[in-house]
Amino acid sequence: MTEFIPANARFVDLPSPFPMKRGGALHGARMAYDTWGTLNAARDNAVLVLTGLSPDAHAAANEANPEPGWWEAMVGPGKPIDSERWFVVCVNALGSCKGSTGPASIDPATGRPYRLDFPELSIEDGADAAAVVVRALGIERLACVIGNSMGGMAALALLQRHPGIARSLVDISGAARALPFSIAIRSLQREAIRLDPKWNGGDYDDDAYPESGMRMARKLGVITYRSALEWDGRFGRVRLEDEREDDDPFGFEFQVESYLEGHARRFVRRFDPNSYLYLSRSMDWFDLGEGHDGDVHAGLAAIRVERALAIGVQTDILFPLQQQEEIAEGLRAGGANAAFLPLPSPQGHDAFLVDIERFGPAVSGFLNAMRAPGR
Amino acid sequence: MTEFIPANARFVDLPSPFPMKRGGALHGARMAYDTWGTLNAARDNAVLVLTGLSPDAHAAANEANPEPGWWEAMVGPGKPIDSERWFVVCVNALGSCKGSTGPASIDPATGRPYRLDFPELSIEDGADAAAVVVRALGIERLACVIGNSMGGMAALALLQRHPGIARSLVDISGAARALPFSIAIRSLQREAIRLDPKWNGGDYDDDAYPESGMRMARKLGVITYRSALEWDGRFGRVRLEDEREDDDPFGFEFQVESYLEGHARRFVRRFDPNSYLYLSRSMDWFDLGEGHDGDVHAGLAAIRVERALAIGVQTDILFPLQQQEEIAEGLRAGGANAAFLPLPSPQGHDAFLVDIERFGPAVSGFLNAMRAPGR
Repeated sequence: MTEFIPANARFVDLPSPFPMKRGGALHGARMAYDTWGTLNAARDNAVLVLTGLSPDAHAAANEANPEPGWWEAMVGPGKPIDSERWFVVCVNALGSCKGSTGPASIDPATGRPYRLDFPELSIEDGADAAAVVVRALGIERLACVIGNSMGGMAALALLQRHPGIARSLVDISGAARALPFSIAIRSLQREAIRLDPKWNGGDYDDDAYPESGMRMARKLGVITYRSALEWDGRFGRVRLEDEREDDDPFGFEFQVESYLEGHARRFVRRFDPNSYLYLSRSMDWFDLGEGHDGDVHAGLAAIRVERALAIGVQTDILFPLQQQEEIAEGLRAGGANAAFLPLPSPQGHDAFLVDIERFGPAVSGFLNAMRAPGR
Repeated sequence: MTEFIPANARFVDLPSPFPMKRGGALHGARMAYDTWGTLNAARDNAVLVLTGLSPDAHAAANEANPEPGWWEAMVGPGKPIDSERWFVVCVNALGSCKGSTGPASIDPATGRPYRLDFPELSIEDGADAAAVVVRALGIERLACVIGNSMGGMAALALLQRHPGIARSLVDISGAARALPFSIAIRSLQREAIRLDPKWNGGDYDDDAYPESGMRMARKLGVITYRSALEWDGRFGRVRLEDEREDDDPFGFEFQVESYLEGHARRFVRRFDPNSYLYLSRSMDWFDLGEGHDGDVHAGLAAIRVERALAIGVQTDILFPLQQQEEIAEGLRAGGANAAFLPLPSPQGHDAFLVDIERFGPAVSGFLNAMRAPGR
């Protein structure tokens, strides 16, 4: 069981016990976070970034850790989320394996990793844990919370459960509830991991590791994170230069096949399989309509936030555009000045990671339009 | 190794040897077919139906076999492909396990199933084998060839390799070449099967059978054959009535998960895994641009056919609408009276199986507009 913690990560302890929404509690749990810029005296320039399923808290290079981060082009001095103006905080999701407590962490009750004894994880738990970090940093009210994908779900949960914690929201390729196509994809990813005999009911180690299951899960992820349109232009029908072996008609022959294989190889040993299962299922369960007779619009309208921007991508098949439109409409019904911005990025669900040309101005424009923070 | 041959199937022997496009040849191979209606004296009322990957030749009930078929609502007396007017022929694809020779058939050279000794299969081989059936039935020229999905590829290959074999074409959710998104999905399906230890390099039997791999492959198929839009309306976030077992947070809980499981269970033991691999790969390889410097438009423009209709579905993520538009444009450049019909069916790639309300009139309208066949 390995955790993958960025260099010089910082931590905030969660209250112990830390109660979980679906039952049970964590003891001695902690959250990993990273920051850019400085919290001003008025403490009104903080921006919180909530991530998708797999990233750590190290969104971009900083003094403590000059390694480039997963959102390098977006966060830093002079970048769209400008650390010369904003105090930017990114947290690693609760349940992850990259610093925050998750199934790969040591259960203090047993001295061994939690594995499947980790309590059921919900998006709301992650939001509550993020709120603890915000408070621990002395922030009364965030200028903005920015959430991507799963983080877009968590951002909504944060606003719902902690009214007033943020003045504004940028929700990127997020959703107010999981819909059956994405549930089906995630269910199949989990099944691939669980079918791997080496998963062994969650009791694997580095020597006996569910590598095949993780590879399948990751490939299915990559396929659904990008878009057919992008791949037509990028791969077309290009063959690999090395001829496939003559006796295997099913070996990799097209560039797109080796691209997937490369992505999978980089991932499978760098993310804890049990953590993947927990985070994946937490997304299926998320539904802002809970407590509102299943009416997600009502759930959104109950949220109080001054301004919001819901950004979606036309080629996203996993969190389709209607879901971001739904967010903007629901928040508007609750009194927010909320806009919906559909982008024509060809890169699908993952566009926010790569189409900086479109996402940069969209996010910086929203932030710049805010009342200037104090000094 | 089981083949799944419909009752009272009829067969045509292929020439022996039957050379395969990518090398090798079949010996003593045969094609299974079924028919509806009567070939008229002028022999000009024949309609050939080419299927997708999994169906057999029994498209609909007939006298020889009153069991309903996979396209029951479309084929028969008074139906959109009206057997009172047309002599309808459907062939089981070469390489399948439902009557036509495939990897599960006995190799006469060894007396044992071919398994992976089956030669590499291409869409063009299937088209050549279908042409043999057409000739064996005494048909000089088909009034129309209708191909669905993989059959839409095969129909184009048939026209390309057998000029004049059909006056017209209805190409449904087909493609003139495979693109990387669909290649990636199929590659992952094949990987799921091949990773199953019980696949055993193609050497399985009914007792040691790659059930898990087939289940994964089929679920991924069903997910990509339908559409998110349809599932939102059909399943939403409905839970299963039986509570999941309390100790398994990853057990099936949403209706969409058990729907996939049910589909998979019905399929895995009713389709030969090796046959699945061969047919799947043949689609990846298909490219009408071959022999035209990769220019698929030129490949299509080289086809001679009088009239054509390329039907596509807006919610199809596997054979997207642009591919049917490409077919119509290319055939038009070759002199055909070719139309492109995009349909708003919510059911995705599989819509032609279920959205009879839209597909029925589209197909019957095209057929009815043809010069009336002789008597």
